[in-house]
Amino acid sequence: MKVINDLLGYNLKIVQDTDYFNFSLDSVLLVHFLNLKKNMKILDICSGNCPIPLMLSTKTNSKIVAVEIQKEIYNLAKESIELNDLQNQIELLNMDAKDLTDSFETDSFDLITCNPPYFKNNDSSKKNDNSIKTIARHELMINLEDIMRLARKLLKNNGSLVMVHRPERLSEIISIMLKNNISPKRIQFIYPKDNKESNMLIIEGTKNGNNSLKVLEPMIIHNEDGSYKDNIKDIFKTIE
Amino acid sequence: MKVINDLLGYNLKIVQDTDYFNFSLDSVLLVHFLNLKKNMKILDICSGNCPIPLMLSTKTNSKIVAVEIQKEIYNLAKESIELNDLQNQIELLNMDAKDLTDSFETDSFDLITCNPPYFKNNDSSKKNDNSIKTIARHELMINLEDIMRLARKLLKNNGSLVMVHRPERLSEIISIMLKNNISPKRIQFIYPKDNKESNMLIIEGTKNGNNSLKVLEPMIIHNEDGSYKDNIKDIFKTIE
Repeated sequence: MKVINDLLGYNLKIVQDTDYFNFSLDSVLLVHFLNLKKNMKILDICSGNCPIPLMLSTKTNSKIVAVEIQKEIYNLAKESIELNDLQNQIELLNMDAKDLTDSFETDSFDLITCNPPYFKNNDSSKKNDNSIKTIARHELMINLEDIMRLARKLLKNNGSLVMVHRPERLSEIISIMLKNNISPKRIQFIYPKDNKESNMLIIEGTKNGNNSLKVLEPMIIHNEDGSYKDNIKDIFKTIE
Repeated sequence: MKVINDLLGYNLKIVQDTDYFNFSLDSVLLVHFLNLKKNMKILDICSGNCPIPLMLSTKTNSKIVAVEIQKEIYNLAKESIELNDLQNQIELLNMDAKDLTDSFETDSFDLITCNPPYFKNNDSSKKNDNSIKTIARHELMINLEDIMRLARKLLKNNGSLVMVHRPERLSEIISIMLKNNISPKRIQFIYPKDNKESNMLIIEGTKNGNNSLKVLEPMIIHNEDGSYKDNIKDIFKTIE
């Protein structure tokens, strides 16, 4: 069922379909993590229903290219962009991100953002399941290698890739980044509660940068009673 | 000046020389991080004045081989081991850890612990400085590649290397581990205070393990006023 939600209760609306998936905290924290500058050329891949470009539009006037492969989800994103009157800032493409190298020159973007499928495509039960949710969650259509190859080609020198992902895949993420000359520069680990293992990370890598890494302060989401911690509530307020 | 200190106020003494360096929190947190089992064969390299083997002796009856290359520091460690009457548990060697492959069979150890020199040897001002402190802090005599090569050879299959290091070198650490078939399994990031970047990490890699990583709960050392947080005080109490 298609619904129109407030994006965090502020001035933006987001169109979602309850049969597919809702935008998540992952995208909110990724946007919060970014160091934005003026007049960046920004590319968001694996855009889904476009939460990252929508939130970015409240923080920058830079042009944003957003790419979503699944037609059904692309249609939701298109509706959101029109509903918020952001057609001039966000260029939405319905295509396979792997083909972007045919559409854009190398060294085109200052920033690539990505909330990709988190799970490896090695579960044989998923192999023949092409449902919309499965494609969004599993590396059926795009994987870490594809994303880093793309970043290597499309980022300007010293441009940044910022991605949200799962800590269990950190070794692979770093190793595939290095293989593609994307140097990990900043990581923030997200923890669901105090004294719990991390269940999310946000990583920034720069094209052809050096390998000195900063691990930012830990971000803990919930209090023991399940309510959001104050610093998380503050982040919600910055997106308006 | 040589002094004899209580190792955290408990039943152990440690011999230190104020001209060189004191054992540090790094070693305490490394020992706390370990998952010890019965009858492990343990190797500690870059042992310094032996804080890790000394603390380990309070937690396990397993035999520990400790290796320190610098004669002056080895002598302090030897004195500590005798003072605490641990000659039967800790075998102390004064040699270059890189030569251990001549002294021990491959696949000999269940656990290798290491608090290595943290800094790369690329500062030309250090090149001709062979002082005891410089060798302990800079990769003049041993580097990450040497350590991982050694772990690859001396660890049993599924044996663990546990190392304390600096977050700025995380990319290198992971990439050199993977190159040597040491799979990162657990990482804990240490933060000096709330809302500060991490300044230390502890990482466990297992020989020929899979690449799924756990990022443990963050460990924050000091309160705003500089006093130790309660959980850190509790860790001090576990070493006795």
